[in-house]
Amino acid sequence: MNALQFIKILTTFESPLPSSPRELLIRVSSAGICNTDIEITRGYVPGFSGIPGHEFFGYVESVPYPVHNRLIGKRVTAEINCACGNCSFCNQGLSRHCRNRTVIGIVNRDGAFAEYISVPVENVVLIPDTISDNNSLFIEPLAAALEIQEQVKILPEHEVLILGDGKLAHLVALTLKPTGCRMKVSGRHEWKAQLLRDRGIDALVNRQDIPDRVFDIVIEASGSPAAFQEGLAKVKPRGTLVLKSTYVQSFSFNPASVVVNEITLIGSRCGRFAAAIAFLEKERPDLSYLISKRFPLVEGIAAFAAAQQPDVMKVVIDCR
Amino acid sequence: MNALQFIKILTTFESPLPSSPRELLIRVSSAGICNTDIEITRGYVPGFSGIPGHEFFGYVESVPYPVHNRLIGKRVTAEINCACGNCSFCNQGLSRHCRNRTVIGIVNRDGAFAEYISVPVENVVLIPDTISDNNSLFIEPLAAALEIQEQVKILPEHEVLILGDGKLAHLVALTLKPTGCRMKVSGRHEWKAQLLRDRGIDALVNRQDIPDRVFDIVIEASGSPAAFQEGLAKVKPRGTLVLKSTYVQSFSFNPASVVVNEITLIGSRCGRFAAAIAFLEKERPDLSYLISKRFPLVEGIAAFAAAQQPDVMKVVIDCR
Repeated sequence: MNALQFIKILTTFESPLPSSPRELLIRVSSAGICNTDIEITRGYVPGFSGIPGHEFFGYVESVPYPVHNRLIGKRVTAEINCACGNCSFCNQGLSRHCRNRTVIGIVNRDGAFAEYISVPVENVVLIPDTISDNNSLFIEPLAAALEIQEQVKILPEHEVLILGDGKLAHLVALTLKPTGCRMKVSGRHEWKAQLLRDRGIDALVNRQDIPDRVFDIVIEASGSPAAFQEGLAKVKPRGTLVLKSTYVQSFSFNPASVVVNEITLIGSRCGRFAAAIAFLEKERPDLSYLISKRFPLVEGIAAFAAAQQPDVMKVVIDCR
Repeated sequence: MNALQFIKILTTFESPLPSSPRELLIRVSSAGICNTDIEITRGYVPGFSGIPGHEFFGYVESVPYPVHNRLIGKRVTAEINCACGNCSFCNQGLSRHCRNRTVIGIVNRDGAFAEYISVPVENVVLIPDTISDNNSLFIEPLAAALEIQEQVKILPEHEVLILGDGKLAHLVALTLKPTGCRMKVSGRHEWKAQLLRDRGIDALVNRQDIPDRVFDIVIEASGSPAAFQEGLAKVKPRGTLVLKSTYVQSFSFNPASVVVNEITLIGSRCGRFAAAIAFLEKERPDLSYLISKRFPLVEGIAAFAAAQQPDVMKVVIDCR
């Protein structure tokens, strides 16, 4: 089958079909390029070699045991953390943090920029017919955005600031909108702000307008260390700063302001796909506006180049 | 009256009696030296000049209005954050974080290393007769220790690690003991560990014994930046690291592990005195064991020198 692979450099190649006797084989329809994929190709994700890609949907091609036959032909995606089921974290219900986990397209496991992908049966998630193909591509990042609400109770009276205007910031804003909280999104690009305003979200480009120490909750979704410091300045005493981005480099930090102002910092990563599917079924957003460009799998290198341009949001690779 | 004052250097001096027409005058009995006081004398608390000291008890000498006459002669202490009552934080119930606050002996307000101290009436806290004088000296730091339990729910099944073996670490451990949580205290001094063991608390000196990523809650109470990093290593995914110390210097930090492991970092500072008084009344600890040395006020300079020795816990200045 055709696939994109990263072994020090990103290449298209002819790969053997994945074959894992206890797993399920999915024929991939489409997969989105995420910032983590770009970081992989820049060598920022140490130790990964193989096929990247973890935001995808496709159709079940074959199953390991007859008991799973009903899944054949179904439209599905897959939770990205593949747990061992035996370690102390798995035993405590922390399987997304399993000590021995592989992660689809990120840690020791081939991903979705290929015609087929093999995944553990327990990771497979059926996509209801009411959810469009385009919306299906956002189940994984929507789950990550919704994870915030599993960690922090967000109420209508809360003043919330989202730092960033990229894809993740948009998904965070869209998932927070139903809470009724008083929300602002602060970014750097007028056109991205306009896309949010078109969806009824208060989006700003000029951050100087935003006062310090007034927000109950600040969500850092820009990936910039400067935004981390800005978030600390904007959150009010006893408020919460949610860290939704990782950073390539360390930076100088003095937690005194965290202690004196009794700030809560919460790291937030992946979320439950069930929450994302429930959100898509209930709110019926059309996330197609976030898709800037599409490329066939054989043009995967060009797709990655396009995804790194400043004027795009999501770039999708169509695998069949 | 005699007092200790810090204006670039710490001196004993003859001060006029404090006189503030709307405040209450307390004759100070005793006051404990806290690490913050030592940091003030090292110039680490920018802008403070005056009389330090904020852990104290005394007897009400005079009151501003007849309505307060019943307080005269009563044994009291005072909440250290003096709020304006008018700013946006005060209006939101965040008076301990008041934008215009003074802090007794720390920010723009004279403290307790003196024969008399003047405090706002609303800050005065009556000390019940069931609480000994020695225990009364620990109301302020006990309130800070108990603040942790206002921020984090601590249950019997939780594995808790306290980093540090100083006064604050001891108070944190003593206040956590009634929760029934599975607690370890990790310090550097065998004699301080033994004092904890004498009180039924599991205290370790050799930190190498402690596994990584197993604690639901880690409390950093040592003031060492190395312990901050250690705390991040010891807490398990989705666990909580409580920052109870401030640090003089910034250090290099990469929040990636906070995000990937979904750690919650909580800054924790002062607490409610009512909670400390309730703890002392209910648990009836004898905190005298934490008092290493006592000095009269006129030997205040020697008291500060003693408080900076490695072999002491709390040093108390007797002001009358």
